[in-house]
Amino acid sequence: MKTKILLDESRIPKQWYNIIPDMPGKLAPVIHPGTLKPVTPEDLLPIFPMPIIEQEVSPNRWIDIPDEVRNVYKLWRPSPMFRAERLEKLLGTPAKIYYKYEGVSPAGSHKPNSAIPQAYFNKIAGTKRLATETGAGQWGASLAFACQMFGLECTIYMVKVSFTQKPYRKSMMQLWGGDVIASPSNRTEAGRSILAKDPDSNGSLGIAISEAVEDAIGREDTCYALGSVLNHVCLHQTVIGLEAKEQMAIAGDYPDVVIACHGGGSNFAGMGFPFVADKIAGKNIRILAVEPTSCPTLTKGVYDFDYGDTAKMALISKMYTLGHDFMPPGIHAGGLRYHGASPLVSQLVHEGVVEARSVLQMASFEAAVQFARTEGIIPAPESSHAIRGAIDEALMAKEEGKEKVILFNLSGHGHLDMAAYDAYFAGMLEDYEYPEEAIRESLARLPKVSL
Amino acid sequence: MKTKILLDESRIPKQWYNIIPDMPGKLAPVIHPGTLKPVTPEDLLPIFPMPIIEQEVSPNRWIDIPDEVRNVYKLWRPSPMFRAERLEKLLGTPAKIYYKYEGVSPAGSHKPNSAIPQAYFNKIAGTKRLATETGAGQWGASLAFACQMFGLECTIYMVKVSFTQKPYRKSMMQLWGGDVIASPSNRTEAGRSILAKDPDSNGSLGIAISEAVEDAIGREDTCYALGSVLNHVCLHQTVIGLEAKEQMAIAGDYPDVVIACHGGGSNFAGMGFPFVADKIAGKNIRILAVEPTSCPTLTKGVYDFDYGDTAKMALISKMYTLGHDFMPPGIHAGGLRYHGASPLVSQLVHEGVVEARSVLQMASFEAAVQFARTEGIIPAPESSHAIRGAIDEALMAKEEGKEKVILFNLSGHGHLDMAAYDAYFAGMLEDYEYPEEAIRESLARLPKVSL
Repeated sequence: MKTKILLDESRIPKQWYNIIPDMPGKLAPVIHPGTLKPVTPEDLLPIFPMPIIEQEVSPNRWIDIPDEVRNVYKLWRPSPMFRAERLEKLLGTPAKIYYKYEGVSPAGSHKPNSAIPQAYFNKIAGTKRLATETGAGQWGASLAFACQMFGLECTIYMVKVSFTQKPYRKSMMQLWGGDVIASPSNRTEAGRSILAKDPDSNGSLGIAISEAVEDAIGREDTCYALGSVLNHVCLHQTVIGLEAKEQMAIAGDYPDVVIACHGGGSNFAGMGFPFVADKIAGKNIRILAVEPTSCPTLTKGVYDFDYGDTAKMALISKMYTLGHDFMPPGIHAGGLRYHGASPLVSQLVHEGVVEARSVLQMASFEAAVQFARTEGIIPAPESSHAIRGAIDEALMAKEEGKEKVILFNLSGHGHLDMAAYDAYFAGMLEDYEYPEEAIRESLARLPKVSL
Repeated sequence: MKTKILLDESRIPKQWYNIIPDMPGKLAPVIHPGTLKPVTPEDLLPIFPMPIIEQEVSPNRWIDIPDEVRNVYKLWRPSPMFRAERLEKLLGTPAKIYYKYEGVSPAGSHKPNSAIPQAYFNKIAGTKRLATETGAGQWGASLAFACQMFGLECTIYMVKVSFTQKPYRKSMMQLWGGDVIASPSNRTEAGRSILAKDPDSNGSLGIAISEAVEDAIGREDTCYALGSVLNHVCLHQTVIGLEAKEQMAIAGDYPDVVIACHGGGSNFAGMGFPFVADKIAGKNIRILAVEPTSCPTLTKGVYDFDYGDTAKMALISKMYTLGHDFMPPGIHAGGLRYHGASPLVSQLVHEGVVEARSVLQMASFEAAVQFARTEGIIPAPESSHAIRGAIDEALMAKEEGKEKVILFNLSGHGHLDMAAYDAYFAGMLEDYEYPEEAIRESLARLPKVSL
C-alpha cells in the first residue's frame, strides 16, 4: 500500500471535462442585471475575452488544455494523492480515506488551476491587464501569479479590512507583481461613492467586485476575472478530479463517496464533476458538498434567480442563494462566505445528484487539528470543512462496520491562517448557528425575473 | 525535458550517507565544556540516547534508515526536483539550473528530515519526552511534528522575542502538540537567574539552549534534541543529496556546482555531502556554501575550538567560529544567524573541499523575488542565499559563454516570512556589512583547549 500516489507531469490532463452536455435538465439562462433579460455572448465582451465566453457556454464535453497552460501547471501538477492511514488509525475506522492535496501550488490552493488558463486566454485574446477582487486574498494571489507567468498586468481590489488586517496575502500579490488596492478606493465611481458616504468604510466583497468590474469595463486593455461560481472556472478546476480518478485507479480503489468543501463551488466542481459524470453514467457513488452552518447556501438557501454580488452589478443566475445582500458571520473560512453558489453545482443539488451538508466552525477546527496531528499537513479553514465531512463519513462507516472508500479534496494549506488556529487554541473561536432571520430578510429582496 | 522530476516513495533512500569515514584528515575531538577534556560517549548519555550517540561517532559509511522513519518520510519524501527553465530564460544564461525543494514537508523546510529520526531513536531508547530550543521556530515546529508522530512529549524553549513577535510558528508547534515556553522562563535555573537580573529579558538562542539542556539533564525521562551542527543531524539530512543524485541521473545531467545556504550546516550537509563523496572519489565538481555577510562564519571566522552556545554549557568543537558570544545583526534569515558551523562542514572548508561565499541581505531578497516571479515558489529568506549563489553562478556562466549545470537546495518556503518581503518592498530592509570589530572582540574570548 502506498502512502502517496504521484503522477508524472506527462499525466497532467490534456483536456478539461465540461459537464454542461451531461447536465440533468436544461440550463437556466443567465440574466443581465440591467435589462433583466437573458445575456448574449456580446453582452459579456466588455468583461471577458471571447475564448472564456465560449468556454462558459460550450456544449463540448472535452475542451483542450493548451500546452502553454500545461507547462505552467507542471510547476505543481499533477498534485499528489495521499492515503490517510494515520487518520484512519486514530478514528479506528474500517473506511479507507484518500485525499487529493491542492496546497502544493505556489499560491497554496486550487485557485491557480483557473487563474492560469484565465490569464492565458486573456493574453491570446489581446488583453493587457486583468482586474479582479479578492477577500482574504487566495484568488488575488493566484491571479497575480498567473499574470506574472504570461506577462499581463494585474490589479486587485482587496477588501480593505483584509488589506489592513491580513497583510501577508497582500505581500504575496505584490511579490508576484500585482497592484493591490484597498477597496473601496478612489479609482472607481463605485469606490468614490462609498467613500463619500463613509470615508472609513471597511469595504466588502460586493463593493470590491463592483470596483473590479467597473475598472474592466472602463478600460479597453482590461478584462475582469472571477475565481469561482462561473462555468468556465468549474471547467478549469476539473483537472483535480481527472487526476484523482487516475490516482484512485493506481491505488486499486474507487470512491464510495467524494467530498469537497463548498463556497462558490470551484474546488467542489473541480473534484466532483468528473465523478458526477460517472454517477450520471450509472456508477453507484455519492458526491458530497460541505458548507459552513453560518453560510448554508446549499442546505438552507432557495433555488432561484439572484445577483452574483451585493451591489447588483454582476450577472443574475439561477442558483442556490441566501440573498445577494446576506452578510455571513465572520468565520475564519473566508473563502466559504458567499451568498450564492455555482449554477452548475446548484442544479446538481436541485436534481438530487449532489448531496450537501453543513458543519459548525468548531467542529471543522476539531477535524483540522486531528488531521494535522496525524497527516502532518496544516489545512486551510475552508478545506477543514471537507475533512470534517470525511471524518464523519469514516465514523459512520465504523458504526455500521462497513468498509467504505472515502475521497476528499484538501483544497489548500493553512500557513497563512495560523491566527485562526491561535484563536481556536486560545478558546476564542465560537460557533455561529444558522442565521435564520437574516436569511429570511435577504431572501425577500431577490430580483423579479420573468422569462 | 521535464520541469519536475518526481521519485516514487519506494525510492526514499534506505540508508543515510555518513561522511565520517571519507573525511580528509583526522576528526578533531569534541571537548567537554566543564573539564575542557575530550568527551566520552558516556558523558553524553544524560542528553542524548545511545543510538544517536552511536551515529554521532559512527565509522560506518552507510547507516540503515528504519522502516518506521521511512514511513513518516513518505508524507513528503522523496521531495521534488525542478528545472528552473523560467529563471534561466530571465537570466539569459546558457547554464541549466536545477533545484531540490524541501519546502514540501509539513513544517515547510528540511528540518523534519532529522527531527523524525531523532524522535524515533529516542522513542526506541525509552525516552518519553524531548526538550529543545528554537529561535524563529523552524526547528521547534519540526520536532513537535516528529514527537507527535511517535507519541513523545515535546517541550520547546522559544526565544521570547520570537515567541511574542512571531506567533504563527508558535501556533504550528501547539497544533502539533508541542509545549512552547517563552525563554527565559521560570522552569529552569538558567532561566530564573536571567530573569532575576532582567525580568524583561527578550531571551537569546544561547539562553534557550541552556534551558533545554538543563531541562533534559534534570529529568530521567527527557533527552535533548538539536536541529543542526552535529554529525548525526548532517547524517539524517543526506536523504536530500542522495535523492538529488538519482533525480539528476533521470534528468540526464550531473552538476558542475552544488549550492546550499549555510547556517549551522544541516541543509548544506544534506545536499552537499553525497556530492562531496563524489568529489573525494575524483569527480570534477564544486560544492558551495552561501552564508550572510552579516554572519560570515565560514568566510571570515577562525577554524578553532569554541563553545556551541553563548552560555558555555554546550560542547566545544573545532569549527569555523565568530566567537560564541558574537551577536549577529537582525537579518530576516534567522536560521543563518549562528556563530559557529558544523565541525564536518568546517573541516571540509578548511581542507579546501568545500567553497564558501557570503552575500548581502538585499542581494538575497532580490534573488528571492526573481525566483518567485519565475518559478512561483516563495522562498524562505535562508534559502534565498542559495538562490543568490545559483543566480550568480548562472550569470558567470553567461559571461563566460559556458554551459554549466547548477544544482541548489531550496531548503524551505517563505509563507511565514511574508513580513520580511513586506519590509523589502516597503524599502525598510538594510544591508549589514561585515561586522569586523564585533567579530574581533568575540574571537578574543575563545576557550583555551590544549590537547
